[in-house]
Amino acid sequence: MDQDHLKSLLEQVRSGAVEIDAAIERLRHMPFENLGYATVDHHRAIRTGMPEVIFGKGKTTEQILGIAERLLERASNVLVTRTNEEVAGRMKALYPEAEYFPACGALRVWRDRTMHGKGPLAVISAGTTDMPVALEAVVTAEVMGNDVDQIHDVGVAGIHRLFGNLDRITKARVIVVCAGMEGALPSAVGGLVSCPVIAVPTSVGYGASFHGLAALLGMLNSCASNVSVVNIDNGFGGGYVASLINRL
Amino acid sequence: MDQDHLKSLLEQVRSGAVEIDAAIERLRHMPFENLGYATVDHHRAIRTGMPEVIFGKGKTTEQILGIAERLLERASNVLVTRTNEEVAGRMKALYPEAEYFPACGALRVWRDRTMHGKGPLAVISAGTTDMPVALEAVVTAEVMGNDVDQIHDVGVAGIHRLFGNLDRITKARVIVVCAGMEGALPSAVGGLVSCPVIAVPTSVGYGASFHGLAALLGMLNSCASNVSVVNIDNGFGGGYVASLINRL
Amino acid sequence: MDQDHLKSLLEQVRSGAVEIDAAIERLRHMPFENLGYATVDHHRAIRTGMPEVIFGKGKTTEQILGIAERLLERASNVLVTRTNEEVAGRMKALYPEAEYFPACGALRVWRDRTMHGKGPLAVISAGTTDMPVALEAVVTAEVMGNDVDQIHDVGVAGIHRLFGNLDRITKARVIVVCAGMEGALPSAVGGLVSCPVIAVPTSVGYGASFHGLAALLGMLNSCASNVSVVNIDNGFGGGYVASLINRL
Amino acid sequence: MDQDHLKSLLEQVRSGAVEIDAAIERLRHMPFENLGYATVDHHRAIRTGMPEVIFGKGKTTEQILGIAERLLERASNVLVTRTNEEVAGRMKALYPEAEYFPACGALRVWRDRTMHGKGPLAVISAGTTDMPVALEAVVTAEVMGNDVDQIHDVGVAGIHRLFGNLDRITKARVIVVCAGMEGALPSAVGGLVSCPVIAVPTSVGYGASFHGLAALLGMLNSCASNVSVVNIDNGFGGGYVASLINRL
Amino acid sequence: MDQDHLKSLLEQVRSGAVEIDAAIERLRHMPFENLGYATVDHHRAIRTGMPEVIFGKGKTTEQILGIAERLLERASNVLVTRTNEEVAGRMKALYPEAEYFPACGALRVWRDRTMHGKGPLAVISAGTTDMPVALEAVVTAEVMGNDVDQIHDVGVAGIHRLFGNLDRITKARVIVVCAGMEGALPSAVGGLVSCPVIAVPTSVGYGASFHGLAALLGMLNSCASNVSVVNIDNGFGGGYVASLINRL
Amino acid sequence: MDQDHLKSLLEQVRSGAVEIDAAIERLRHMPFENLGYATVDHHRAIRTGMPEVIFGKGKTTEQILGIAERLLERASNVLVTRTNEEVAGRMKALYPEAEYFPACGALRVWRDRTMHGKGPLAVISAGTTDMPVALEAVVTAEVMGNDVDQIHDVGVAGIHRLFGNLDRITKARVIVVCAGMEGALPSAVGGLVSCPVIAVPTSVGYGASFHGLAALLGMLNSCASNVSVVNIDNGFGGGYVASLINRL
Amino acid sequence: MDQDHLKSLLEQVRSGAVEIDAAIERLRHMPFENLGYATVDHHRAIRTGMPEVIFGKGKTTEQILGIAERLLERASNVLVTRTNEEVAGRMKALYPEAEYFPACGALRVWRDRTMHGKGPLAVISAGTTDMPVALEAVVTAEVMGNDVDQIHDVGVAGIHRLFGNLDRITKARVIVVCAGMEGALPSAVGGLVSCPVIAVPTSVGYGASFHGLAALLGMLNSCASNVSVVNIDNGFGGGYVASLINRL
Amino acid sequence: MDQDHLKSLLEQVRSGAVEIDAAIERLRHMPFENLGYATVDHHRAIRTGMPEVIFGKGKTTEQILGIAERLLERASNVLVTRTNEEVAGRMKALYPEAEYFPACGALRVWRDRTMHGKGPLAVISAGTTDMPVALEAVVTAEVMGNDVDQIHDVGVAGIHRLFGNLDRITKARVIVVCAGMEGALPSAVGGLVSCPVIAVPTSVGYGASFHGLAALLGMLNSCASNVSVVNIDNGFGGGYVASLINRL
Repeated sequence: MDQDHLKSLLEQVRSGAVEIDAAIERLRHMPFENLGYATVDHHRAIRTGMPEVIFGKGKTTEQILGIAERLLERASNVLVTRTNEEVAGRMKALYPEAEYFPACGALRVWRDRTMHGKGPLAVISAGTTDMPVALEAVVTAEVMGNDVDQIHDVGVAGIHRLFGNLDRITKARVIVVCAGMEGALPSAVGGLVSCPVIAVPTSVGYGASFHGLAALLGMLNSCASNVSVVNIDNGFGGGYVASLINRL
Repeated sequence: MDQDHLKSLLEQVRSGAVEIDAAIERLRHMPFENLGYATVDHHRAIRTGMPEVIFGKGKTTEQILGIAERLLERASNVLVTRTNEEVAGRMKALYPEAEYFPACGALRVWRDRTMHGKGPLAVISAGTTDMPVALEAVVTAEVMGNDVDQIHDVGVAGIHRLFGNLDRITKARVIVVCAGMEGALPSAVGGLVSCPVIAVPTSVGYGASFHGLAALLGMLNSCASNVSVVNIDNGFGGGYVASLINRL
Repeated sequence: MDQDHLKSLLEQVRSGAVEIDAAIERLRHMPFENLGYATVDHHRAIRTGMPEVIFGKGKTTEQILGIAERLLERASNVLVTRTNEEVAGRMKALYPEAEYFPACGALRVWRDRTMHGKGPLAVISAGTTDMPVALEAVVTAEVMGNDVDQIHDVGVAGIHRLFGNLDRITKARVIVVCAGMEGALPSAVGGLVSCPVIAVPTSVGYGASFHGLAALLGMLNSCASNVSVVNIDNGFGGGYVASLINRL
Repeated sequence: MDQDHLKSLLEQVRSGAVEIDAAIERLRHMPFENLGYATVDHHRAIRTGMPEVIFGKGKTTEQILGIAERLLERASNVLVTRTNEEVAGRMKALYPEAEYFPACGALRVWRDRTMHGKGPLAVISAGTTDMPVALEAVVTAEVMGNDVDQIHDVGVAGIHRLFGNLDRITKARVIVVCAGMEGALPSAVGGLVSCPVIAVPTSVGYGASFHGLAALLGMLNSCASNVSVVNIDNGFGGGYVASLINRL
Repeated sequence: MDQDHLKSLLEQVRSGAVEIDAAIERLRHMPFENLGYATVDHHRAIRTGMPEVIFGKGKTTEQILGIAERLLERASNVLVTRTNEEVAGRMKALYPEAEYFPACGALRVWRDRTMHGKGPLAVISAGTTDMPVALEAVVTAEVMGNDVDQIHDVGVAGIHRLFGNLDRITKARVIVVCAGMEGALPSAVGGLVSCPVIAVPTSVGYGASFHGLAALLGMLNSCASNVSVVNIDNGFGGGYVASLINRL
Repeated sequence: MDQDHLKSLLEQVRSGAVEIDAAIERLRHMPFENLGYATVDHHRAIRTGMPEVIFGKGKTTEQILGIAERLLERASNVLVTRTNEEVAGRMKALYPEAEYFPACGALRVWRDRTMHGKGPLAVISAGTTDMPVALEAVVTAEVMGNDVDQIHDVGVAGIHRLFGNLDRITKARVIVVCAGMEGALPSAVGGLVSCPVIAVPTSVGYGASFHGLAALLGMLNSCASNVSVVNIDNGFGGGYVASLINRL
Repeated sequence: MDQDHLKSLLEQVRSGAVEIDAAIERLRHMPFENLGYATVDHHRAIRTGMPEVIFGKGKTTEQILGIAERLLERASNVLVTRTNEEVAGRMKALYPEAEYFPACGALRVWRDRTMHGKGPLAVISAGTTDMPVALEAVVTAEVMGNDVDQIHDVGVAGIHRLFGNLDRITKARVIVVCAGMEGALPSAVGGLVSCPVIAVPTSVGYGASFHGLAALLGMLNSCASNVSVVNIDNGFGGGYVASLINRL
Repeated sequence: MDQDHLKSLLEQVRSGAVEIDAAIERLRHMPFENLGYATVDHHRAIRTGMPEVIFGKGKTTEQILGIAERLLERASNVLVTRTNEEVAGRMKALYPEAEYFPACGALRVWRDRTMHGKGPLAVISAGTTDMPVALEAVVTAEVMGNDVDQIHDVGVAGIHRLFGNLDRITKARVIVVCAGMEGALPSAVGGLVSCPVIAVPTSVGYGASFHGLAALLGMLNSCASNVSVVNIDNGFGGGYVASLINRL
């Protein structure tokens, strides 16, 4: 039931054309619409500047293009994750401002570049093979209006490299840390700063890394209290949660 | 917002005391109440004769007694699962009709004994050690108004015992099968009948049964198409789902 | 031993051509045939209108065609699951009425379209990527004689979409819910209705979804008592169990 | 090397008592102390009002009392997690203002009650058995200077209860959600709000909940993008991360 | 339907008191009984000298005594596994010849000591802590009529001890090998002999032995082709299978 | 040290050319050779008629041909497992009597067809997709000198098919049972016969079969005491162990 | 065959009392004894100063005392792991020099205190709850003749504490690192030093630490190349391997 | 801050151009540089002759060539692991002395062939399919300056082959053992020698080897105390750790 129907119903109540009990009965069967109102309003207020997101995995090129077209009619910024060259080519033909990041398969149309983050948001990766996941976090955080500081290849086995960037790390208002293998970097970073750290386990590793399980367990068991975790290889999620926090 | 508040609001709309836009605004913030109506009504129609259920595990004696008392003011039948002798003693003192089944820790107050099941509901167990789980299913199905036929100790290693009960098994309208160890009985039963079979894996077993995991996986991979599965040791769930089906 | 042999044996008993002890001895060695009688009879009564099912996975084109041909001599409806374009092309050449559903690889010959379901059977999916599994459930339930109502893309993260379909959901007599990732939708649906819910975990997801394990565990641990579960991606199983229930 | 030693060394450099090369040599061997400076300063600025935390599990009563005494000489607020009645009794005798929460084993000395959170912090639990974990989050968030709004027993199987609290939920600046079994509540909450949601899986459940693994996997695979996760039963971690976010 | 009923039915057929079609109908509903014949006869022939076995775990003292009493009326030898001192005391009072083995909880009444094994059956254990499981195998194999040669504490880390017993090992007709930790002994033994080796993983070990999982996987992956495996700690199963083989 | 060296050493001892202490010293350093003697002799006696086996997986065509050539100089029968068309073509060119079984990738040169099995060896499979594994068992058992009776497609969901073959099953001296999915067939077979049953889990299945893990756990937890288990898809192992038993 | 028998045999060869072929035959059947020689000699050379070790877990007090007594007749140093107060009391009564370490259950008789380690051996632990495991490593390394430097409570979340001990850490010739939770400390230490690091995962942790599995996987996936790993909680193993290395 | 900056700062302190407090302040912000000194110096001393290592997996040809070029300007020896023919071709064109090992994908430039190992380092493999992993260990140990003795195909099922090489095995100062399937070889080797054994599980195996998990668990649970373990298929790690030990 949209607002017009509700208004019309109430007008009929006022005019006496509909009995109160009948109106109650009809209202009884429209829970979602009322809910929908609240939700939409609420979101409209908070979601200012949020990009619309399309999860590309498992969708056809046509599906993605169709959804993107619809979203770009009303949204300034659109992010497509886990997509490919073909979609990128088609999108760029339609929206020349579209940027494609082949390393992580992300594509974004970033028109409204208002900054929403209230401070620097750092994205840190342990090794060069973790960089695609980190890049997804960077692309996400940028399109959500953050000034992103990237620090790569500072894993715990060369911990001096981490300390060489201590300055930049301690300046961040919120940090995303991407690491595979033993997943120890978020703990090390978390022990050096007091801000929230979002840990993103990556599926980088050999043998008993079990496609990111070792890193995931390591991060969940972090001895640093300021660490929370998102799914394996979920750079988007890491960038998204960090961006929400950085707006506060 | 309960019905009185909604009625009062609509009366104010009719009387002109509240503007239509203001009414929309107020309705906009009460999604749940409208939803609640629908849900409750809906449930009232369908839930006739359903017992109220209290999951006893992790609740104190006082908590269980308090909840039971409140429920028994308006419900005829109450089922408490995973409880103990102490609760049973206290309940029987208050409600002499309460029955306690120490083997599975279930307690029920079964006042309205109307039959709701439209045919025989069979509960089958593979071994004597699976019987406590089967009993929980039986107690649940009975208090939900079913005529329950119990067949025990008919595991696949002595498959002739299963065939010795073929008559009773094929008569059932819906069957709950409880089995631990390799959990093969639901497949065997499922192959013999055409009715729905609810499989309940039990944690009975040694070594590599891994507390019911072996039985659970066996049942999920059943080659019989009429088998669906509930949680390990969840006799209540098996009895509940079967009872819902038997009402149809 | 078919019925003729048994009859002939008994006639020899009556005529005295075979001694009673010899007859007992011979009967002793034919357990299956007697069993077979009962089973077949029993099934004939219940299985009216049931399609014959061929599990296509791991079978060659020739094997599938051979089995299908044999089945279609005596059965009106045949369902082939997990098959491919090649089989579909060959089948359509032979049986022009064959329908192929490439999204889920199902193929059916649906000649006898008698309705057997006693009410609406709903198939609900959480996201668009869960739709192939849901489609398998739909194709199965339809060929088993059900009026299927499909509701897609109503996952718990956009729960208002679920409520927007509350009407259709509460009308269903039995519901199949397909969901990957966290697998939470069956719990949400199960809490809104009182009818049986068959949950089908899908292997949709990233990282720690572990090919559907996360969804499977979520569904097995559902806090809604009316939920039972079939194997990961087993849309056929979900549709089959729901169809059996809907015949009751 | 503490500051005095460093000062003394530099004074010797200035006076010529130590050669520059010798000073370099000595400085070369004191990396940590310089590092320590930075760290401590940095922390002092940010950690204002943070409580000192003692993880009680695996420590003896004497150890906890000793550490607490030392910390309370310089800190206003101390939180002890996973402790017991004995420690609580001894602590209360020494610090009458100490509060003990037996349901979750937390004990706090909360002297400086300055509010640091910039808005309401909500702690939501799915069922009554999840409440001890939720309580640990509440106790933590309060002692870190937050106004905590507690909403309990609003699991997805009774999703109308969640909607009945939509108002309070949408008001929160950051939310901690504690849930066991299928762990679906954070997804449902995450879909209704736009703020960060910290999900805490609990070990509540039966059978295939595998001591919280099902809930953990469910939360990691949440289809809501604003959810990040901490360890199983880690109410402290949930409250801690949420408090850090609420200070921003 | 026992043999008397079948005979009576056939007599009625012969006398004409029962029509052939009616007889077919009645036979149709007794699949199990016919099956039962075959099974029982078959078993009677093969099972000569087999003990009756009671799995004691999860049964009460009264249940075990009741079953034992019934079995001992017709069987010479009875084996009770996983039982306790109380049952043992009661059994010995009734059957003074009963032997109880507290290390593994087995109890046997071994009256008919006919040898059925056609050669030596060896039971080998890797370490002293594996001995209870090995003992269960020994007790089982003895009561099934085998001459059992026990060789203990010959694990692969002290492989010279294994070679020191090469003589006895190569004499065995079938071998049971019990080992925990890495479970490597069956592979080593299997490589030295050509007879069948039944491997019994034990739950002996620390940390990553995961209650016998490491040993179980090790044995299943044995590079020796003559090894097959039973469940963790299943000394009974190892002894039983080996005894069956030794009768051939 | 081969026999010649040993002889020569002892001759030197006898002649006095080597002191006894020096001889002891030299013997001290040749443990393996002495061991080797025993082993070889022992094996020669028992291994009569055993085929030589080459595990093809992970070996190049040249490697397999090279090993086969060497083996066929002294052995009558050679079995190559998990190989391919290319190897088969090359082998057939060299040894026209070579047989290749593409369904399971086995190739055998079977020249000495002496029967070594003392009775029928049955190989049973649950479904048609389990047949490649069953075939590997058949090919192995045949080349080891057994009369193999194959019974296929008799899974527990159509248990009447199993009973239809009861006669052949009960005649077997040892049985190999191959099954995927829930892996219940060995338990059902094990309950019907008294001979040893070797269970071979197959990786056949969907979703939660986890590549044969479900079947493996089911078989290890079999409630039939006469079942032992080999590795997933290890048809060779099943056929090998059964053949060893059938020689006894 | 001990040395006397071998000598006697050779003398008979020399004297002609035994034919050479007969001698070969007899030697052929004594593989182990010759092997034993080599092994024992070899070990005697290398094992100088090695303690004899008794794994106490699962052994009775009498068994431990018996073994200890026998060992102490010929060995100077004996180490008993995982034992208890009762054994300790009995041992001290017999051997007043026995030391018992209740925190880790180790007991040692350390008479020959010769140093065998060629440099400092460091044992590092991440948190105070890891100390019992670290202590087992210390007690082991000491009794094996090492100068052990203990550094505790230097986990990665407080990485400055690790750097505060950099001096001592870089001095070590080999390092044992014990850590639970995320198990990240060995990677951090491994990155700072060039010597071998033996990582000991501990079962310390909550929830998803899964009794040390998270730490174990973290250590196996260490990005530092100088790390190798022993079993969970195996402080003895860590100390033992490190001691062997330190002798080189 | 490099050494020049530090020197300049201290000179300013001596000259009075910089106040001591200001110098402390500046030193306070350069923790890493000071740390760097220590680390580099320390490493320079110890790392003499160490090769530079490039982990090739997940790096592009250009990236590997770029890094290699940079490293070869200052390092004599470079090792690239997990690379391919293309990289090898390009490297050989630039550095004709480069050696490529296609079986394991390792490539090395080995110019400085100084021996650093103090004794023989043995690399042992269980089966021919384990050889690629063993080869990676060999290539690594050689380029790190070891005299490597390779012993292949001596798995425990043919344990006599192991004994046939006892001489070479006992001569080694440190041993790397590579094994898949049940992973029992390190235990057997560990029991024969007293030197440190580095176990490398390989992913070689079928079915329940679970890609090396079975071998990994077997090795972690080794009953031989001198065994420590690296990651699955991590031949490099095994060779690296062993080389470090052999330098001591």
